[in-house]
Amino acid sequence: MNIRRITSSRNDRVKHWRKLATRKGRDENGTLLIEGVHLLEEAVQAGWKIRAILVSDEGTHILDRVAGLGDAPIFSLYPSTFQQLVDTPSPQGIAAEVVVPSERGPLQSADRARVLLLDAIQDPGNLGAILRTAEAAGVRDVWLGTGTVDPYNPKVVRSAMGSLFRSRLRRVDLKKGIPELKRQGYFIVSTSPRAERYHFRFEFPTKTALLLGNEGRGVSPEVQALSDTHVQIPMPGEVESLNVSVTAGILLYELVRQDWTQGDGES
Amino acid sequence: MNIRRITSSRNDRVKHWRKLATRKGRDENGTLLIEGVHLLEEAVQAGWKIRAILVSDEGTHILDRVAGLGDAPIFSLYPSTFQQLVDTPSPQGIAAEVVVPSERGPLQSADRARVLLLDAIQDPGNLGAILRTAEAAGVRDVWLGTGTVDPYNPKVVRSAMGSLFRSRLRRVDLKKGIPELKRQGYFIVSTSPRAERYHFRFEFPTKTALLLGNEGRGVSPEVQALSDTHVQIPMPGEVESLNVSVTAGILLYELVRQDWTQGDGES
Repeated sequence: MNIRRITSSRNDRVKHWRKLATRKGRDENGTLLIEGVHLLEEAVQAGWKIRAILVSDEGTHILDRVAGLGDAPIFSLYPSTFQQLVDTPSPQGIAAEVVVPSERGPLQSADRARVLLLDAIQDPGNLGAILRTAEAAGVRDVWLGTGTVDPYNPKVVRSAMGSLFRSRLRRVDLKKGIPELKRQGYFIVSTSPRAERYHFRFEFPTKTALLLGNEGRGVSPEVQALSDTHVQIPMPGEVESLNVSVTAGILLYELVRQDWTQGDGES
Repeated sequence: MNIRRITSSRNDRVKHWRKLATRKGRDENGTLLIEGVHLLEEAVQAGWKIRAILVSDEGTHILDRVAGLGDAPIFSLYPSTFQQLVDTPSPQGIAAEVVVPSERGPLQSADRARVLLLDAIQDPGNLGAILRTAEAAGVRDVWLGTGTVDPYNPKVVRSAMGSLFRSRLRRVDLKKGIPELKRQGYFIVSTSPRAERYHFRFEFPTKTALLLGNEGRGVSPEVQALSDTHVQIPMPGEVESLNVSVTAGILLYELVRQDWTQGDGES
């Protein structure tokens, strides 16, 4: 195994990796740093391209634990330099620079095609949990509206637990993206506390795009106006709203329920 | 309005309030500090007793904005002293020491009595989101098993957004609490990836206690063994598990759906 040693924290590559800590740096380079054995393996399995592998001097033995890394160059760094580049306090001494795949490509063309639309979700933990829940429920196409936290933010990557690599993300202006979906036959459903119909009484069409909004203010009025219908999640308690990742789970699993019980003749 | 001024950060009351930052201090005193206008109002509305009101020197005007504080003594503190006592970076300059109500009392005796059982939930944000979701779905009885994060931890209080004050919490050893529930006629349902039945195909009994487990390892085997049945949340994607607050939302809203559509003759 050919490991190149970097001994200066002012090395050009180190400077390059340091830039990946910001959204601007990630966007300009089209890459991000991911941390730890498990995420690396998930990225490789999902077919993401690895540009470089970074190991802490202390952690070169960890390379044996990661399968299928291919021929990406490996760099070893002083633990202090390595620690500057990563976001987790104890990242197992391994990280990788991976290439963000192209966002284009056709939508999932399953029998039941679903898209999740997120309007300005701001909390990285929420976005991560939403990606994880969407994948669990079989929804891979997730469109991130303007104002949504960067999905390649290390906290999103961590809380999505690998689902990030398998999701098909697209960063869009929803005011343009929603009309495009409609032209493809999608029905746009969002939630409203004033909607007439409860979510479990609405029969979701085969091609449904679920629209969820910002933690504080919900879906912005201009985007909300593009919905085809609204459903209400009833709240018998004195609560005004639910956490957006919980809302995502409730609605996505209502879709699963409807799909899996169709033709059952039972509820 | 009679405001007492505290000018020393070594004042005995300040020392007392400082102790409320720890679980031990809160347990010994049976009180906690809550922060901000909104939470104070929610606590008062829910009938919680306020023992003392704390305002930052800068923020005494905020007292006008809080209704129904009753005759609790008010103390003004230097901003630096105040800031030492609170958990949020910008807490609006008002906080209160409130008394934790007794945990005893009979269970909710509605037609459809539901209890949520939490086995060692560790993340404060998850517990807060679960309390909020449970209340939204009409479930107020939440039993916190040994190893669960303190519900009076400031992060839980914040993320529960007022639901904490309206929930009926009980801290129990579930190995004793579950047999007690069974004697009262409750049916204990937990989740398992190997369960034969999907959650939406199981008809939840009127008296159901839902059991959810720790973020990493799920429900502990000894507690799991006390379940009457398991249900599976299907995951068509490549995900192994869901965030526990998302799981809570999916199951609690399946209960809501079943209750609200009963006798509908439709799914």
